[in-house]
Amino acid sequence: MEILGNLNVIGYGLAAIGPGIGVGIVFGLGNQAIARQPELRGPLQLNIYLGMALVEALAILGFVLAFALPYTSS
Amino acid sequence: MEILGNLNVIGYGLAAIGPGIGVGIVFGLGNQAIARQPELRGPLQLNIYLGMALVEALAILGFVLAFALPYTSS
Amino acid sequence: MEILGNLNVIGYGLAAIGPGIGVGIVFGLGNQAIARQPELRGPLQLNIYLGMALVEALAILGFVLAFALPYTSS
Amino acid sequence: MEILGNLNVIGYGLAAIGPGIGVGIVFGLGNQAIARQPELRGPLQLNIYLGMALVEALAILGFVLAFALPYTSS
Amino acid sequence: MEILGNLNVIGYGLAAIGPGIGVGIVFGLGNQAIARQPELRGPLQLNIYLGMALVEALAILGFVLAFALPYTSS
Repeated sequence: MEILGNLNVIGYGLAAIGPGIGVGIVFGLGNQAIARQPELRGPLQLNIYLGMALVEALAILGFVLAFALPYTSS
Repeated sequence: MEILGNLNVIGYGLAAIGPGIGVGIVFGLGNQAIARQPELRGPLQLNIYLGMALVEALAILGFVLAFALPYTSS
Repeated sequence: MEILGNLNVIGYGLAAIGPGIGVGIVFGLGNQAIARQPELRGPLQLNIYLGMALVEALAILGFVLAFALPYTSS
Repeated sequence: MEILGNLNVIGYGLAAIGPGIGVGIVFGLGNQAIARQPELRGPLQLNIYLGMALVEALAILGFVLAFALPYTSS
Repeated sequence: MEILGNLNVIGYGLAAIGPGIGVGIVFGLGNQAIARQPELRGPLQLNIYLGMALVEALAILGFVLAFALPYTSS
């Protein structure tokens, strides 16, 4: 049995599943909202950026955590 | 077998899946609600912020837990 | 093999997947319901809070459990 | 038992699930928004590119991480 | 117990889940958008090809990674 690897990469991979889908939903449904009510483009665009930042932050936290937590006991 | 890693990172990664999708749904559907009823923008925006905070908190709890629970018995 | 970590964090992470998506659905669809029938805002808002609290409780239970159950036999 | 392998590949694999779905949602719903409001094609197209880049970046981070984190303790 | 296998194949398998769904969403919703606004067929078709290529690339990266990362420590 010769398994190599670092579980922290798996941790980041899991942390990227949700935000990957979430940011897609924010932009996808946001674009549809803009197409429905074009005169509200300003505040809707702002909301899209805000939602994107908050969701993306969850994945970035996982990226940071993969480096921050020790992966070897020595 | 040379596996390195910290299971706490996997724990946070799992805890970020749901909120990542959830915050995306809150902002995506919230933007569509604003586009449908622009005169209700105030209370809807408030609801979006509230929902976002409550969902995001679940991932932050996972982040805190990854540091709070000991990952080595020594 | 040098794996560090605490399985309780993974347990909380799994417990947060469902509520993360669920609270997002409660707020997202709830906002759309308010936008559709603005004069029912009061009872709908109440229902959103009630649904949120019940779903969120499932993740909080996982958080409590991660501390309540012992993670070492000594 | 002769299992070979590198857990970092599994990590990237997980990191590609969310963005794979997310970029699909961005383009799919974005195209529908363009079809609904053709005169807004410029800003909507820009939003699609922006959303795509932000979601795709999460998978690329996983790709980088698979090389960046050590997968052997020696 | 005689389990054989290479974890890198599992890694690629996971990396193909998201793009598999994502390319389906791009073509599915894209075709509906073309059916709604037939006179926009040119630019929409271009967007479909672009989205497909960007999503497909995520799975191809996983394919490359399965060969690039060493799966044995010797």
